[in-house]
Amino acid sequence: MVKIAVDLMGGDNAPAEIEKGVLQAVEVDQSIEILLFGLRGAYTGDHPRIQFIEVTEKIESEDDPVRSVKRKKDSSLVRACQAVKDKEADACISAGNTGALMSAGLFVVGRIKGIERPAIGTLLPTTNASGKGMMLLDMGANVDNKPKHLHQFALMADIYMRDNEGRSNPTIGLVNNGSEENKGSEMTKETYKLLKDSGLNFTGNFETRDILTGNVDIAVTDGFTGNVILKTIEGTAMALMGEVKNAFLKNAKNKIAALILKKDVQSIRDLLDYRHYGGAPLLGLDGNVLKAHGSSDSTAIVSAIRQAKRMAQSDAITKIKESVGEE
Amino acid sequence: MVKIAVDLMGGDNAPAEIEKGVLQAVEVDQSIEILLFGLRGAYTGDHPRIQFIEVTEKIESEDDPVRSVKRKKDSSLVRACQAVKDKEADACISAGNTGALMSAGLFVVGRIKGIERPAIGTLLPTTNASGKGMMLLDMGANVDNKPKHLHQFALMADIYMRDNEGRSNPTIGLVNNGSEENKGSEMTKETYKLLKDSGLNFTGNFETRDILTGNVDIAVTDGFTGNVILKTIEGTAMALMGEVKNAFLKNAKNKIAALILKKDVQSIRDLLDYRHYGGAPLLGLDGNVLKAHGSSDSTAIVSAIRQAKRMAQSDAITKIKESVGEE
Repeated sequence: MVKIAVDLMGGDNAPAEIEKGVLQAVEVDQSIEILLFGLRGAYTGDHPRIQFIEVTEKIESEDDPVRSVKRKKDSSLVRACQAVKDKEADACISAGNTGALMSAGLFVVGRIKGIERPAIGTLLPTTNASGKGMMLLDMGANVDNKPKHLHQFALMADIYMRDNEGRSNPTIGLVNNGSEENKGSEMTKETYKLLKDSGLNFTGNFETRDILTGNVDIAVTDGFTGNVILKTIEGTAMALMGEVKNAFLKNAKNKIAALILKKDVQSIRDLLDYRHYGGAPLLGLDGNVLKAHGSSDSTAIVSAIRQAKRMAQSDAITKIKESVGEE
Repeated sequence: MVKIAVDLMGGDNAPAEIEKGVLQAVEVDQSIEILLFGLRGAYTGDHPRIQFIEVTEKIESEDDPVRSVKRKKDSSLVRACQAVKDKEADACISAGNTGALMSAGLFVVGRIKGIERPAIGTLLPTTNASGKGMMLLDMGANVDNKPKHLHQFALMADIYMRDNEGRSNPTIGLVNNGSEENKGSEMTKETYKLLKDSGLNFTGNFETRDILTGNVDIAVTDGFTGNVILKTIEGTAMALMGEVKNAFLKNAKNKIAALILKKDVQSIRDLLDYRHYGGAPLLGLDGNVLKAHGSSDSTAIVSAIRQAKRMAQSDAITKIKESVGEE
């Protein structure tokens, strides 16, 4: 039995969609048990493999990450992390405040010794034939990263993608402002050297023009840049799909044509839909912590629980400890 | 009469499309004279207001920016910049190697005294009702920028957008990984303070989720991040429009529907088409230098020439000198 702690109160659609997702997940997979942390009355279900644990506090999305974790010790987010720390759960999930989840990861679950900066790894969809997606990290847990940090991000993502996403010998690119080896900032130039000598399957500099083509399995960057990349993808996709919608609604003729195309265009939206790509693992913590997207609906929660189970069953943390020890 | 120097050899479609664009531009606007720099035989036209100047060298897109400018002194790109330096031309345009154009800008045309790092300002389309576009800078002339540099970027862009794009009191956002004042790297936090006290119309941190919505007139960032943002927009747009195309061609029914929508979907492509947004001015140089997009066709060149004429007629350089003097 795999035990997964879930923050019932986190995310835009909490608690209703979180509950719905949790109920679906336990139906689909008989080997899962859920520890569900929420405010009184938030859980309306009743299931033998869902244990509801009442808490008295909730971390809001606008709360300061570090302060809220330190002050709201009985919040659903902190308690879910505490369950991982205390080995009551094999993994935990929250769709709430990303910064607070990372803070709870650091202060409650704890860092793996030797990992200087844990990172958040986002799984992005890709349009290549295999369509398997890629990992971009760090997505924003850090700012002001050093080359050493990015080297560790690459090590951790390599292990994660092998163990959890079934990639053998994943390719790793370094986000940069040009493809040539001598390109970039002082930071990326230095990181390039580290990755080149790392024994990882480093394929050189990566330009984000290829961010969705899937020509690498892992793209490594500092948390500031990673965060900007994600928001740029989101903004560009929203703007373009908004324009497509406007074109479809422009006049009666277009509306009829749009009706025919509706399903296939919907599948393009789905392509960029986080729900199909699951949560973002927090890498470098001494426990399995998964960030589900803030707008998660029940489908996203089902997929995140599946992913958390894979994390719990994998050896990724042990392997990260070993690889850091070898450095 | 406004004299504009044009690099006939720069860009993916040079020299044919550059020549075509130049010929169109002089037809449309009787007040323009072109100094056209190219290799022997590259210019096949004949027009009283186009003066062809034969050169013996050409800078390739893969040439090292600094070295090529120093070595290829008789290249079309360097000679076009030299014409600005020598006041033979009021402005120059190249669709060639961006780094080389900035190098020629620095070594041949020269920096404005007091400007530490000239920047490349890209005009981006926006989907808001006015659809007037915005400026993102630096797009990649610099790496490892300091807060002082970003402050100067904002000053220069403010002047450019007033003088050349008719924006009164343009709003300025600082690209950051969150909207709150205390967010970001050491660099953005320091820049925030400078911009807040600058007297510019600073609206705070800007998240690139809004990069195409037009809610600021100017977004300021370091050259590394600016370059990554542009490539991410490009990659996302290419991937999505590729998927739309696939959906349109999927089967006979879709193809018919697509035929009806073709024109309106084409106009979405156009929305993100650089040709409608002209070139990227090199700001901080003591002369008007404009980078046209590498894939410029004749339409893009016509538009760039129009933009270069506006630059030549504006007081932007004088105003930048004054504002730097006041700092």
